[in-house]
Amino acid sequence: MSALRVALLQSSGRPGSVRGNLEVLEAAAGRAAAAGAGLLVTSELFLTGYAVGEALPRLAETADGPGARAVDALAARHGLAVAYGYPEREQTGARLFNSVRLTGPDGRTLAAYRKTHLYGDFEQRWFTPGTEPVAQAELAGLRLGLMICYDVEFPENVRAHALAGTDLLLVPTALMHPYEFVPEHLVPVRAFENQLYLAYVNRTGPEGEFEFAGRSVLAGPDGTARVRAGQGEDLLVADADPAVLAASRAANPYLAGRRPGLYTSLV
Amino acid sequence: MSALRVALLQSSGRPGSVRGNLEVLEAAAGRAAAAGAGLLVTSELFLTGYAVGEALPRLAETADGPGARAVDALAARHGLAVAYGYPEREQTGARLFNSVRLTGPDGRTLAAYRKTHLYGDFEQRWFTPGTEPVAQAELAGLRLGLMICYDVEFPENVRAHALAGTDLLLVPTALMHPYEFVPEHLVPVRAFENQLYLAYVNRTGPEGEFEFAGRSVLAGPDGTARVRAGQGEDLLVADADPAVLAASRAANPYLAGRRPGLYTSLV
Repeated sequence: MSALRVALLQSSGRPGSVRGNLEVLEAAAGRAAAAGAGLLVTSELFLTGYAVGEALPRLAETADGPGARAVDALAARHGLAVAYGYPEREQTGARLFNSVRLTGPDGRTLAAYRKTHLYGDFEQRWFTPGTEPVAQAELAGLRLGLMICYDVEFPENVRAHALAGTDLLLVPTALMHPYEFVPEHLVPVRAFENQLYLAYVNRTGPEGEFEFAGRSVLAGPDGTARVRAGQGEDLLVADADPAVLAASRAANPYLAGRRPGLYTSLV
Repeated sequence: MSALRVALLQSSGRPGSVRGNLEVLEAAAGRAAAAGAGLLVTSELFLTGYAVGEALPRLAETADGPGARAVDALAARHGLAVAYGYPEREQTGARLFNSVRLTGPDGRTLAAYRKTHLYGDFEQRWFTPGTEPVAQAELAGLRLGLMICYDVEFPENVRAHALAGTDLLLVPTALMHPYEFVPEHLVPVRAFENQLYLAYVNRTGPEGEFEFAGRSVLAGPDGTARVRAGQGEDLLVADADPAVLAASRAANPYLAGRRPGLYTSLV
C-alpha cells in the first residue's frame, strides 16, 4: 500500500468572509494537488473565521449548506479530499456546533464530527458540545479520524480513536499563545502513545482578542514531527506511510499491553 | 503549605548485591537530607539490581523482609521518606512482583505497589502483574502516588492517579536505549495533561543485556522539567510546590473538562 500525502494549510484565511476563505482554500488545494497530496486539512472554523463574534450565528450553516457544496466542488475539481472546520447549524433547530467535515476527492461527504470538548468562554457561549466521540472514514487504504483542537489534549479521546483503528487523526485547531507546549510536546506524544499519525493544523497570528500560535505539525507514530510549521501562514506537505505505522506498532505494541479492567475509574 | 523537596537517585547501584545497594542508598540519603529533601526516590528494582537473571528468585524478599527493614532504619536515621524498587515475593506462595515500597521518615510503611504493566521478556518471565492500579500515601501535605516504568507510558494509569487526587507521582524506572523519547517528551506531557508532579527515576549505563538511558526528571504540572539528569549517575534535588500545583490546575482545568460518558470504549 502506498503512502497518503497530506497537506496542512496553516492559515487563518479571511475571518468573517466565507467567500475569501473559499478563495484561500482553492489556491491551497491547487498547490497541494500539484505537490501530490491526496488530502488537504484546514484549521478550526476555517470556513468562517474563529473570532467572528456576534456574526457567528449568521455565518453558520448546515452540514449541506452552500459553503459545504462549494468545498465539495473544490475537492472534486482538484481530486483530493478536504477536511475543514466550520460552525454548523443543526438541520432543524437553532443549536450551533463547532464542526469539521471531510469531503472525498469525488466531492461526497466522507465523515463529519462535532467538537465534544469545548474550550473557553467564546466556545462555551455559542456552541453545543457534540456527543459522538469517534468519527472515521476510509481514504487510500488508511482509516482517518476527526477531532478538533482541545479534544486532543484529553488522552482519552485519542485513545478512543486508536482503539477504533484510526491510522491518521485530523485535528483542525485554533491554539493560542502561550500554549505552544501542546503542538511542541503533547501532540507528538499523543501520536506515539497511540501509534498513529496526527495532523494538527492551526490558525496564525492575531484575530480579535486571540493570538494564534501556528506550529502545525504532522506527527508520526514514532513521536517524530514529519513536518512542522513556524508561526506564520504555510502549506506543509508530508506523507502518512502505512509501512511506518506497521513498523512502529510492532516496536511499541501499546494497545496489546493495555489492561482495560484496571481503568474503570476513567468512565 | 510549604514545598516538599524531592531527591531523585539516578543510579543502578550494585546489581546483584543488596548490601552494596543499601550502602549506595545510605550515602544518597545522607546527601539528600543534607540538601533538605524530605523524600528520596530510587530506580526500578534498585534493592537488588535489574539484570540479575537467574538470581532474581533468590534475591527477592517479602514486603517485610530484611531489605525492607534496613531501608526503614535508614529512612528513620536520616528523617526522610524513601521510595525504592525491589522484587517482591508474596507472603505465602512463590509468585514474584515487580514492586515499589514507600517508607516514611519514621521508618514505617506508607504505601506499596506492584507493577501492573510488565515490560518485555525478562519481566514477563519472572513477574506476576499487580492488580491494584492506584497506591497512594500522604506526605508533608501532598498526596503521593506510586507507579513503575512502563506503567507511565499508558495514559490511563496516570489519569487514574489524577482522578484519585495524586499530587506527586513517583515512578522508579529501568528505561533502556533507544527509548529516550519517554523521559524527554512523554513524561512531561503526562505531568501537564494530569496537572501533577512526576518524579521519573532511571537506572544508568550497561547492565547485562540492557543499556539504561538515565535522563531522570522531575516534571512539573506545567510540563516543565524542574530538574533533569544526563546519562550518568546523579542525585537530583528539586521542589514539589503546592502553590505551583494550584496555579497550574487553575490555568489548565483538564479534570473539570473531562466527559467520562464519552470514554466507555477505554474499559
